[in-house]
Amino acid sequence: MLKLFYAPGTCALASHIALEEAGAKYETQRIDFATTQQRSPDYLAVNPKGRVPALVTERGILTETPAILAFIVQSFPKARLAPLDDPFAFAELQAFNSYLCSTVHVAHAHRMRGARWADDPQALEAMKKKVPESVGQCFELIDRAMLKGPWVMGESYTIADPYLFTLAQWLEADGADLARCPRVLDHRRRMAERATVRKALADESEARAR
Amino acid sequence: MLKLFYAPGTCALASHIALEEAGAKYETQRIDFATTQQRSPDYLAVNPKGRVPALVTERGILTETPAILAFIVQSFPKARLAPLDDPFAFAELQAFNSYLCSTVHVAHAHRMRGARWADDPQALEAMKKKVPESVGQCFELIDRAMLKGPWVMGESYTIADPYLFTLAQWLEADGADLARCPRVLDHRRRMAERATVRKALADESEARAR
Repeated sequence: MLKLFYAPGTCALASHIALEEAGAKYETQRIDFATTQQRSPDYLAVNPKGRVPALVTERGILTETPAILAFIVQSFPKARLAPLDDPFAFAELQAFNSYLCSTVHVAHAHRMRGARWADDPQALEAMKKKVPESVGQCFELIDRAMLKGPWVMGESYTIADPYLFTLAQWLEADGADLARCPRVLDHRRRMAERATVRKALADESEARAR
Repeated sequence: MLKLFYAPGTCALASHIALEEAGAKYETQRIDFATTQQRSPDYLAVNPKGRVPALVTERGILTETPAILAFIVQSFPKARLAPLDDPFAFAELQAFNSYLCSTVHVAHAHRMRGARWADDPQALEAMKKKVPESVGQCFELIDRAMLKGPWVMGESYTIADPYLFTLAQWLEADGADLARCPRVLDHRRRMAERATVRKALADESEARAR
């Protein structure tokens, strides 16, 4: 059975929702960031990068959200979570997800994870200070030029939707100007009503409470 | 015909090499970063993110290296540049490329593009200072745990190879400790001997001289 390593409040939520959408049989295991379990020897054996998500499959372990999402799509083709047979449309979807991981998530990470890129405490403060602007710019661009509507890629719901929803969870904490991304907020509201999304969020919330 | 917008010395080289490997008919257009042409209205109409690469196709414009590389693979299946019919192997390849764009390239970018994430000049200096360590750690991990050999994914040459080669161009300028990634350096040497790589590098070098 598939097994997803995750931590609540992280980008692993995107893979969690996608597994629900695909109708996959899977189990989850929470990694406790409060005790830096992601850097424990046991977890580094799962993912030497010390990050979540990681998906254990019968063939081996996969990491990186865009790759896990594409794997779920290909493994559960009946769920039609991506236009697999259309190279251009599939690449457009991959481009969106790639932007989320390499630009949007990275902009966000400068609020809490600045130590990845600088040691000086003042530099970490300077990074935090810019997050509302840099994250805000990303979401303004998504709102204006990338989110086709009603779903990210247009009429069809795809793996880009749970991924955008996941990163949009962080807008308020990042201090982004919500007035600049009304369509993203509308997307987030509609996503939050889906049974699959509620299920994944409830699972993560229960695990946190235990 | 396909048209690749690129700038010399950037990650667009990966897509350039992949087009050569695929035997694609394509043309290139250089964007001049010295005059910030990437932020000109003409180019922002091509790619509102103001970055390279961008690939013009008959269906529309694609951005983001992992997505462009996957598009080239799917559009030229005879070149066998990825295990398209094996969801796990394809996801492993996508995970590698995703790590390059979201972690390795991002670590590198803190040397020259720190203004994306902070305004304070001292913070930019602090970012530069950490690049040898952060980039070095990425390449050490690739060397130890990710590069299967002789090619990134093992016996088969894939789109991950030109992408790794492209980012490995920056090792010296980033100040990374080369002793920590001997297998990456060996891969880089073998890549540099390929006719496709020499052709792409010569094209970019000629365009720069004009």
